[in-house]
Amino acid sequence: MLKDFAKAAKPSKEEIDERLEVEQARLAANQLRIRQAKVPVMVIFEGWGAAGKGSVLGRVIKDMDPRFFSVVTLSSRPTEEESMRPFLWRYMVQIPKEGQFKFFDTCWMEEVTNGLISNTLSHEEYDNRIDSINMAERQLVDNGYLVMKFFFHVSKKEQRARLDALSADENTKWRVNEDDYVENEQYERALEVYGRYLRDTNRSAAPWYIIDAKARKWATLQVLEFLNMGIEVAIHNRGVAAPLRQNVFALKRMPPLASIDLDKTIEYDEYRAQLSELRSRLRELHNVVYRHRIPVVIAYEGWDAAGKGGNIKRITSALDPRGYEVHPIASPEPGEKARHYLWRFWNRLPKAGHIAIFDRTWYGRVMVERLEGFCSENDWRRAYNEINEFENELIEAGVVVIKFWVQIDSETQLARFTDRQNTPEKQWKITDEDWRNREKWDAYEQAVDEMIAKTSTINAPWHVLESNDKRYARIKALRIVIDAIEHAC
Amino acid sequence: MLKDFAKAAKPSKEEIDERLEVEQARLAANQLRIRQAKVPVMVIFEGWGAAGKGSVLGRVIKDMDPRFFSVVTLSSRPTEEESMRPFLWRYMVQIPKEGQFKFFDTCWMEEVTNGLISNTLSHEEYDNRIDSINMAERQLVDNGYLVMKFFFHVSKKEQRARLDALSADENTKWRVNEDDYVENEQYERALEVYGRYLRDTNRSAAPWYIIDAKARKWATLQVLEFLNMGIEVAIHNRGVAAPLRQNVFALKRMPPLASIDLDKTIEYDEYRAQLSELRSRLRELHNVVYRHRIPVVIAYEGWDAAGKGGNIKRITSALDPRGYEVHPIASPEPGEKARHYLWRFWNRLPKAGHIAIFDRTWYGRVMVERLEGFCSENDWRRAYNEINEFENELIEAGVVVIKFWVQIDSETQLARFTDRQNTPEKQWKITDEDWRNREKWDAYEQAVDEMIAKTSTINAPWHVLESNDKRYARIKALRIVIDAIEHAC
Repeated sequence: MLKDFAKAAKPSKEEIDERLEVEQARLAANQLRIRQAKVPVMVIFEGWGAAGKGSVLGRVIKDMDPRFFSVVTLSSRPTEEESMRPFLWRYMVQIPKEGQFKFFDTCWMEEVTNGLISNTLSHEEYDNRIDSINMAERQLVDNGYLVMKFFFHVSKKEQRARLDALSADENTKWRVNEDDYVENEQYERALEVYGRYLRDTNRSAAPWYIIDAKARKWATLQVLEFLNMGIEVAIHNRGVAAPLRQNVFALKRMPPLASIDLDKTIEYDEYRAQLSELRSRLRELHNVVYRHRIPVVIAYEGWDAAGKGGNIKRITSALDPRGYEVHPIASPEPGEKARHYLWRFWNRLPKAGHIAIFDRTWYGRVMVERLEGFCSENDWRRAYNEINEFENELIEAGVVVIKFWVQIDSETQLARFTDRQNTPEKQWKITDEDWRNREKWDAYEQAVDEMIAKTSTINAPWHVLESNDKRYARIKALRIVIDAIEHAC
Repeated sequence: MLKDFAKAAKPSKEEIDERLEVEQARLAANQLRIRQAKVPVMVIFEGWGAAGKGSVLGRVIKDMDPRFFSVVTLSSRPTEEESMRPFLWRYMVQIPKEGQFKFFDTCWMEEVTNGLISNTLSHEEYDNRIDSINMAERQLVDNGYLVMKFFFHVSKKEQRARLDALSADENTKWRVNEDDYVENEQYERALEVYGRYLRDTNRSAAPWYIIDAKARKWATLQVLEFLNMGIEVAIHNRGVAAPLRQNVFALKRMPPLASIDLDKTIEYDEYRAQLSELRSRLRELHNVVYRHRIPVVIAYEGWDAAGKGGNIKRITSALDPRGYEVHPIASPEPGEKARHYLWRFWNRLPKAGHIAIFDRTWYGRVMVERLEGFCSENDWRRAYNEINEFENELIEAGVVVIKFWVQIDSETQLARFTDRQNTPEKQWKITDEDWRNREKWDAYEQAVDEMIAKTSTINAPWHVLESNDKRYARIKALRIVIDAIEHAC
């Protein structure tokens, strides 16, 4: 893509100035339209060192309202803290919210191409990164994001001249680092890697725009024209449903909830004995998890009053409190609602060696959001695949993912609701909403069956915990967590 | 405090077990009361290495609902990212929200005492840290927090025995690091430093509880009894107004708004010439700010339609977009409202070398929150001093703090509102709320006069920008920013 890059003819100086003024004003107007249309915009600048990304950025935003955009500058290598999370993590936590622009002064490309050039990333890892990036960009676009990617291209000679000029000036020499000169010396090799990356990630959801970056103003004009076009198309497209993708993950066959045998029980003495034994084992394993730097995610979903809280407590009581966190998930806060629905979960991922337990999860998308109409039909239908992809990202990064559906029957729920209502110390646990949700039992059951069928991937299947007898469910959960961690160690 | 520490008599094994069970159940009940009373609880564990903080913590939380507490584990030294912010920053961003417990497995004590023991912190710096910590703890308590501080005390011999035991076991040896052995070798010196710190920070708002940590269960029981008592007192005290503190900061005398001459103007040609010159100067200075790692905070307050947005833009247009961020401040999100009102600003502090511009600020506390009754009278009256302290923390950490009040008269506002209403492209800028606020002009003016009088500290005075002529205000703002940065370089 880079070697045969078809440059547009550069206009005259006067024409550039004239068109620049028009495009800057157009962008200011488009910024307002983006705010009103509530589209989140992610603009990615990548390219050769010293190609002028920073100064072009300064000109691009010239007429924009600085309160509604921001600039993200990421280091080309992850920090220690960042490297304890999946590859996409440090980027995904930065995505803009609706109506806002975020400019990324290098994003996920640089880390990957640097890795390949310096031979610190294997070809297999490279391929995995490309899959992750394509997945992330497509998911963002499918969920209403506009993602615009610009590659700033300069020749070897031009790059060298700029590096020398920057180094010669006291005020700018800090902008040049050794990597930039290395890149220039290995220009041909880098050209090949960049070309390959651009080809590998040039998808219809977010195509590449290659910018002839030799002259600053001309480069600015190219960016502005593409950006304005992109915005206008995005506003026009808004609300158009994204196509549903075929499932590509191997699935485990799961029985429908109605066929689950809920009569399973455990005797009290047996329960105490097993609980004590399993806890000791989990306590030991938590040490191993920490030492081997394994991140663990445990996701709980289930009926109201199914016993999620008590079940979680039997897990945490075996853990060192410095090594886990429980995230109770309620309805999203405004800043969370204004972003990709998985953002708030990206934000809560455990670092290597830690355990994150979610009391309700990202599956809200295909349950409460589906049934209450908080998202469109296209949104929740797409979500099965998006969630499988999200979990696959975690698994590829070495995260142990364990998902529990805590199952009871409708009569048991009624008995527990009534008990809560009648016991003063338990009344805080029951709300009118619980009673309203109960009326929708059948619709929920259908949604849950569909969810379990479509998201029980081989690597992260659902585990149904039969919880009419809460003790039985606790013992089963402990066993599953222990098995999964032992398997990973 | 440590040498003459009066140990409580240790009860018999049976009595400890019995009381432990009572206290754990009491804490579970108190956790629910804390949720209902919406009190945020910060529990700080400090003490000797290997004194058993972690395992006591595990026992303390045994019967708590793990969804409503969490544990913060901070490294004893700030990371590179953390060290680019004021000392308190990495702690303040972690404070709990109302109804929640956060356990800090070491907090601000360890960093400071380590610094003194290793001679990396001067005595002057130590004194400053103590002031910061006392300020932070008092502000938290005054704003409804419960802060409980426990110091785990063991003898030199006991510590040594524990370190050896931990090191001997494959599963636990990673818990011991070299610092722990150094601490043991320098026990007497550390004892002196810890004793001094405990004395220096033993204030009525958040006194120290010294725990005889020789036996695990007994230590747990001591913590539980103090914690339960603390919770019960805090719930009892809830809603009691905190005393107003005397102002201790030197203030600059400021004229009332009504006496400001708003007829100041600048000719268009003169404006263009000065704008261009001042921007070039600011552009150069931004480089220096980056290279010298100076953090800058620019705060904007002012009447609706006074011209804040345009003024901010004239500043940002001279800046490298990778080195600043504009934070538009609207009403707080739920997670922000549930914490100390300054938390969301701690969260947005610029790192060294960056500029943060706030479009509306922490002064909302003494303007809109005061006038709309979003906080109590005691809250906003206390806030003048709290804000002066907050800004003082920034200034002590080397942050350049610049505060603008953008001033217009009531007739000018009316003219601008009417213009916005009548111009389609400007209509998004005007809401019914703006008109409602306008009706309260006199009350606001009185509040602003009080605010400016009480928070114009010598190091961070208000600058009033006469903005009936917006151009005049822009030039004045640019000059003030340039002066302040030049002064700091």
